[in-house]
Amino acid sequence: MVSVKLQKEENRKAFLEIFPTLRDEVLDELRKYNMPEDAYEWTKQSLDYNVPGGKLNRGLSVVDTVRILKGDAVTEDDIFKAQVLGWLVEFLQAFFLVSDDIMDASITRRGQPCWYKKDGVGLVAINDAFILEACIYLFLKKYFRQTDYYIDLVELFQEVTFQTELGQLCDLITAPEDHVDLSKFSVEKHRFIVIFKTAYYSFYLPVALAMHMAGVKNEEAFKKAKDILIPLGEYFQVQDDYLDCYGAPEVIGKIGTDIMDNKCSWLINQALAKANPEQRKVLDENYGKKDAAAEAKVKALYVELDIETLYKEFEEASYQKISGLINDLDESVGVKKEVFTEFMNKIYKRTK
Amino acid sequence: MVSVKLQKEENRKAFLEIFPTLRDEVLDELRKYNMPEDAYEWTKQSLDYNVPGGKLNRGLSVVDTVRILKGDAVTEDDIFKAQVLGWLVEFLQAFFLVSDDIMDASITRRGQPCWYKKDGVGLVAINDAFILEACIYLFLKKYFRQTDYYIDLVELFQEVTFQTELGQLCDLITAPEDHVDLSKFSVEKHRFIVIFKTAYYSFYLPVALAMHMAGVKNEEAFKKAKDILIPLGEYFQVQDDYLDCYGAPEVIGKIGTDIMDNKCSWLINQALAKANPEQRKVLDENYGKKDAAAEAKVKALYVELDIETLYKEFEEASYQKISGLINDLDESVGVKKEVFTEFMNKIYKRTK
Repeated sequence: MVSVKLQKEENRKAFLEIFPTLRDEVLDELRKYNMPEDAYEWTKQSLDYNVPGGKLNRGLSVVDTVRILKGDAVTEDDIFKAQVLGWLVEFLQAFFLVSDDIMDASITRRGQPCWYKKDGVGLVAINDAFILEACIYLFLKKYFRQTDYYIDLVELFQEVTFQTELGQLCDLITAPEDHVDLSKFSVEKHRFIVIFKTAYYSFYLPVALAMHMAGVKNEEAFKKAKDILIPLGEYFQVQDDYLDCYGAPEVIGKIGTDIMDNKCSWLINQALAKANPEQRKVLDENYGKKDAAAEAKVKALYVELDIETLYKEFEEASYQKISGLINDLDESVGVKKEVFTEFMNKIYKRTK
Repeated sequence: MVSVKLQKEENRKAFLEIFPTLRDEVLDELRKYNMPEDAYEWTKQSLDYNVPGGKLNRGLSVVDTVRILKGDAVTEDDIFKAQVLGWLVEFLQAFFLVSDDIMDASITRRGQPCWYKKDGVGLVAINDAFILEACIYLFLKKYFRQTDYYIDLVELFQEVTFQTELGQLCDLITAPEDHVDLSKFSVEKHRFIVIFKTAYYSFYLPVALAMHMAGVKNEEAFKKAKDILIPLGEYFQVQDDYLDCYGAPEVIGKIGTDIMDNKCSWLINQALAKANPEQRKVLDENYGKKDAAAEAKVKALYVELDIETLYKEFEEASYQKISGLINDLDESVGVKKEVFTEFMNKIYKRTK
């Protein structure tokens, strides 16, 4: 029997292999339109630079979920279609990352310069992001037009895109990199940002896409899936915030900069909620400063307020709550517990 | 009998009156999501600032076309639905303008600062543009989900959006404001840019939306409409290029800056095609410079090359060609000649 790890590697390889086909199909559209050569080449480079190259977790989870839901009945065509949908989640992610990097004035992404930072690209990257988004609907039309769930896929992508944009707006105006105002932060706002900016497209979207493919029609099933996946996504993002400060840099592969970058992180919101006026003053004076001494003062205050214990409590409570929801799930609505336990196992107590 | 002009004013007023309703429906969605108050207010301001306030020609032409196609059978509900679709074209336009202004580093739009130039907005405007686009699909779902042409509307908006983005890409890399290279220009590229960046969404989209509403199903009818409207849109944009240089500033309401801005205009492409090596040198040295003397040299060369006569010939040939297409149109496919003659009458020999 093939080991689970080996199987994962195979799945990933198979998934990666279809990207060039999809890219070429976009390029074929441009040929059909007689697009001038330089604009054609530009688009090719944008696609290659921005779409693959990530961890591909979101895309792969569409394929994994289709496998679980269809079980032994899964066909090669199912797998191919699931891979296409998986890539569309990656196109959506590329659309968000290319534009978020511009708005956040980021320098690097996935270990290389952000697309807009490349020589000669600049703000043309905004339009490149639009094109990445448009590709989603090109492919949905091409591969799913004949299915009875085509419009459901289209609407799902549109709704989740809108939700993510609302989360991004809230994040941008709550925590601009260049202007610190902690009175704008709150535990509720952090929750809104995390759920809308991350959880919908990273957790709910891949599973809901797979459910449509598996023939699930019951609205209730989608609601149940959302009720589990949104808290799971929230928990995942809180972990991310925690690891940014407390993770081992050699394990997470980067040095956290949330404090210096004025990020509306779970940690600062917990600290704000717990701080007395004196402690609050320390936070106001030191958060969001590009200065190691100021960062150290914030970190010291996190220790003083014992934010790490709060985190452990949150982690345990999330685990209990989500496990309970999974346990109580009535599989007859058309989903399987295994879909969610798979996610949970990947996430619980992760260190990177 | 009400005069045509008065009727136009009435239509425009009725059209404008439904905008607040649409805006509030977007805001209701945000309430439903429990969006934090500041992000809610931000979105309200973005909608009010960016969506109305234009000439509204594109939006109104959906309503006009529905009236023509449905004739006496038109109902109040038809008019309302056509107004909604008209506003969606205006939302699409707002999405393009907000983002184009950032990419072009523009300062003013519609007589006021560009949205991204407003105090405190900046690059958050990129995400605001996304939200404007997302509203289109929110409304299509709300108002057209029950119709048998819902998916056609969705696909039409997606296709035209993609086409416009391809036109914008080509324009951006052919004629960046800060780097002049006339060897990138060509009559063919100009044509691609004009058709993709402007004609599809400004001319074909409003009519095609109205045709769907009027129950046209015949693919051939859409093709015929496109065959007329794309050349019409091309002609319109060439006029725009002409008026930028030769229009009376007090009539067109602005002082043209295409030469200084290194725009890939019809005029420069005609000049490049006709110039001898000496004249080409003058163009290379003076086009795209923020300098009145350089601009004057380019204008003098346009006179020397008699570009104005070329324009008059193009105008006449376009008129003849398009009139011929309209004349030959077989109305039994499901469209009416009047739709196109209306457009033509608004455009032919316009001075602003």
